[in-house]
Parts: sequence; C-alpha cells; structure tokens
Amino acid sequence: MFMPTRDTIICISLAGKPSNIGTRFHNFLYRKLGMNYLYKACTTEDIVGAVAGVRALGIRGCSVSMPFKEAVIDLVDTLDESARAIGSVNTIVNTDGHLAAYNTDYLAVRSLLRTHEVSTSSRVAVCGSGGMAKATTAALRDSGFSDVTIVARNAHSGGKLADTYRYRWIPETTSAYDVLINATPIGMEHQPGLPFSAETIDAAHTVFDVIAMPATTELLAYARKAGKKTIAGTEVIALQAAEQFALYTGIVPPDDLLREASEFSRR
Amino acid sequence: MFMPTRDTIICISLAGKPSNIGTRFHNFLYRKLGMNYLYKACTTEDIVGAVAGVRALGIRGCSVSMPFKEAVIDLVDTLDESARAIGSVNTIVNTDGHLAAYNTDYLAVRSLLRTHEVSTSSRVAVCGSGGMAKATTAALRDSGFSDVTIVARNAHSGGKLADTYRYRWIPETTSAYDVLINATPIGMEHQPGLPFSAETIDAAHTVFDVIAMPATTELLAYARKAGKKTIAGTEVIALQAAEQFALYTGIVPPDDLLREASEFSRR
Repeated sequence: MFMPTRDTIICISLAGKPSNIGTRFHNFLYRKLGMNYLYKACTTEDIVGAVAGVRALGIRGCSVSMPFKEAVIDLVDTLDESARAIGSVNTIVNTDGHLAAYNTDYLAVRSLLRTHEVSTSSRVAVCGSGGMAKATTAALRDSGFSDVTIVARNAHSGGKLADTYRYRWIPETTSAYDVLINATPIGMEHQPGLPFSAETIDAAHTVFDVIAMPATTELLAYARKAGKKTIAGTEVIALQAAEQFALYTGIVPPDDLLREASEFSRR
Repeated sequence: MFMPTRDTIICISLAGKPSNIGTRFHNFLYRKLGMNYLYKACTTEDIVGAVAGVRALGIRGCSVSMPFKEAVIDLVDTLDESARAIGSVNTIVNTDGHLAAYNTDYLAVRSLLRTHEVSTSSRVAVCGSGGMAKATTAALRDSGFSDVTIVARNAHSGGKLADTYRYRWIPETTSAYDVLINATPIGMEHQPGLPFSAETIDAAHTVFDVIAMPATTELLAYARKAGKKTIAGTEVIALQAAEQFALYTGIVPPDDLLREASEFSRR
C-alpha cells in the first residue's frame, strides 16, 4: 500500500472543470515506477492565490487547463519557448520556488508531426482558431511547414492566427489539401459532426484530430474507413502528459508503460 | 491500491521542520476507513502564500506547527475559542474558502484532564511558559482548576502567563503539589533530564508529560516506577490529531483504530 510521507512530491492540475484523466495517468505511472509522488486535479476561483500556493507549498508541477492558460502567464517567472510562441501555458514546473512555464500541447503536436513523418512540403489545412489551433499552427511553423491554411469561420481570430505565422486564412475549405488537422471541438461527445466535408477528406492523404474524447471521432472513423493515414487526439493527450511527466520528474517512462497509463487514464 | 481522483480531499500540515507523524496518522486512518482523502506534511518560507494556497486550492485542513502558530492568526477568517484563548493556532479548517482556526492541543489537554479524572481541587504545578504551557494553562483554567502554579525560569513569560490566568508564578518548585505537568522540552531526545526534582515528584500523586517523543520520558519512567498515576504525551498527540481528523472529516474513529493509527504514526 502506498503511504505518502513528508517527502512525497505533489503535482496538481488547475482547470475550470477538472477531468480525472491526468490524475489517473500520473498516479498510475508513479505507482508502477515506485516513485514517491502524488497527483491531484484541482479547481480554483482564485488563480493568483492558487499559483501563490503552488510556489509557497512547494508543489512541484502544475498542469493548467481552460480557462487559466493565458492568466498564469503573468504569475510565473520564466516562459519556455513552447509557451511564449503561442502565448498559452499548460504546464508549470516549480524548482525551489522558481516557476517555469511550458506548453506541452505544442511539444506533443511537433513530436507527432515528426514521428508520423508528415512531409513539410504537404499542403496543410488547420480547422479552428482557439488555443489548440494556436499550439498546432505554431508547431507547424516551427517544424518547417510552409503551405498552411487556417480554416475558421471567425474572421477575426482566424485572420489573426494566420497573420501571426504568415499563413493564409479562409472561412471554409474550397480546394484540396494533403493533410487535414482538426483543432476545433467538433467531434466531441456533445458536438457531433465532421469539421471537414467528405470531399475534402477524400482528397487528403493524412487526417489528424486533436480531440481525445471520444478516442475515435467521426472524422477519424471516416478517414480510417477511407484508408487515410490518421493521427489521433489520444496520441496528443498521452504525449503531452508524458512530456509533463518528464518535466516534473526527470524520468521518461518506456513507451509500453505510457500506453498502459494512457489506456488506464481513460477508463 | 488507493488511486487519487479529482474528488480526493487534501489535508496538509505546515511546519518549519515537518515530522512524518501526522502524515502517517491521517493516511493510515483514511485507508483503513476507505476514505477518499490524502494528507501530506509541507513546509514553507512564505506563510501568507501558503495559507492563500490552502484557500485557493480547496485544501480542506491544515495542521500548523512551529514557527507558524501565531503568524496564521491574521490570515484566517474566524478563531475558535480554543485558539483565541491562548493566541495560538494549530489547526485550520477550510469550508468553501472560509478558514476557521482551532487549537486542538488545548482541546486534547482538556479532554485528558477529564478522562483521567484529575480532580479540579488538586494543587497543580505546570513547568514551562511556551506555546504548550499556554495551551495547558488555558485548559486548566477552563476546566475549573483554581490552585495552579506556573514554574518557569523565565520571569517575563512565566509571570505573564500566570497573570493572564490569575495563577501564581515561581521560578522553581519549593513546596508540594498533587499534580505535576511538564510543558517544557526537558526529556526530549536531545534535552535529557527531569523537569521536576525527585522530591517534588515523590510528593505528587499524578504526573503528566506533554512530550510525545520519546514515548517514555525520564519523568514518566520515574513516576511509573514510583507508582504515580501518569498521563503521557503520546496521549496528547494522538488525541489532538484525532480532534483534527474529526474537524477535517466529520468522522470520529473508534478508539482501537485511533490507538492503531497512533502506534503506526510513530513507527
């Protein structure tokens, strides 16, 4: 039986509506690897007090979700390039009271584009203009992709995101793309549907959906049936959590254990 | 295997030099009682930020030890009579962001005087004038003891403590007492010795030592050998922790389980 001690290292998450995924993922790995760590999802109505508490109580790591990803920027000591690039933080690492902020969603998307060998000469369409679209677009730019189109109904945020990275913006897909990336909530449980038209999907060779719940979205199901190469949101969430795990503990767990933790976390 | 979830309730302690006793005591009870709680000893260099964190992160309970027992008074919302009486807090309970402060050492001493049926007409000598002497003296006054002498070499703090409760102060025991209470560190591992002279102990019928480590102090060993009735510091620490447990969880564990937890905590 694991019994915490005064030396147990605490990591937490801060979210408006915490899920159980992170808590299960990290604690599963801690127990499997015999580490004296604990992880707990929290919520707060006072982000300033919460981050002060992270610092003062020596909480080692803090995952940051909606709606705090921008608000914490002014509360940390340093911004890693991953967080600075997109102006959004999803991870805080506390080293003796010094808070460094990262964005592991960005790191995960960059990593997946590489491991799935998505060619940088691909014509890419990114659907969405929110936080995850920003992380994805920054990852594309920093991975060397030059032909990227932001597809977003919101002309203001879509246009702004495209301008930032010198890509183009359009309100709806009109031509063919090699790679489609969904960075909207379309396909989540309460928002069914396809973010791209069937024709657009048929014309592409690779489909990347950032949604992790459900594991198989309508988009992924359609793409797999059509024989497309797919990258799933479950890979993003597992990889970004693995990046957090490595930042908090300095340990990179083996791939099979990460897979096991990822499956356990979504049960 | 206990696996924390987003709903797990967290309690902590804040101490300059945290021991493992509280962490082991509370977690042992949580696991035995199948409760979704976790306890972790913390330290801090920023008591204001730490208490802000307790509030903002929804930490349910916070035990407070040296050197923070007075400093937290201004950081909580309400002081229970137990803490107000002696101007010292050892327990904070957070109910939806409202922080109420208690002193369970005081509550434990009061309870032990009652359960051990120490007669309020006894002539009592309390050795010491620090935080624990304050809690003990307030407990004696509020339990109805009228013949109490504060024995303390420090004329300032000893005299002040005696004045506060309208008791008398003397620098050293000169006459006979029925009940002797040690509220100094004399008898702890690095401070061996007897806080009262052998003659004074011989003349008493009850000896109460607040020191919990070691479980059997020189004073208790001497008193037991001489056939005196004794009350041990291990009873104080177990009882005050049980009071904290009840304040945090609303549950009063059965006595045999508390004994088991107390033994486990000091192993």
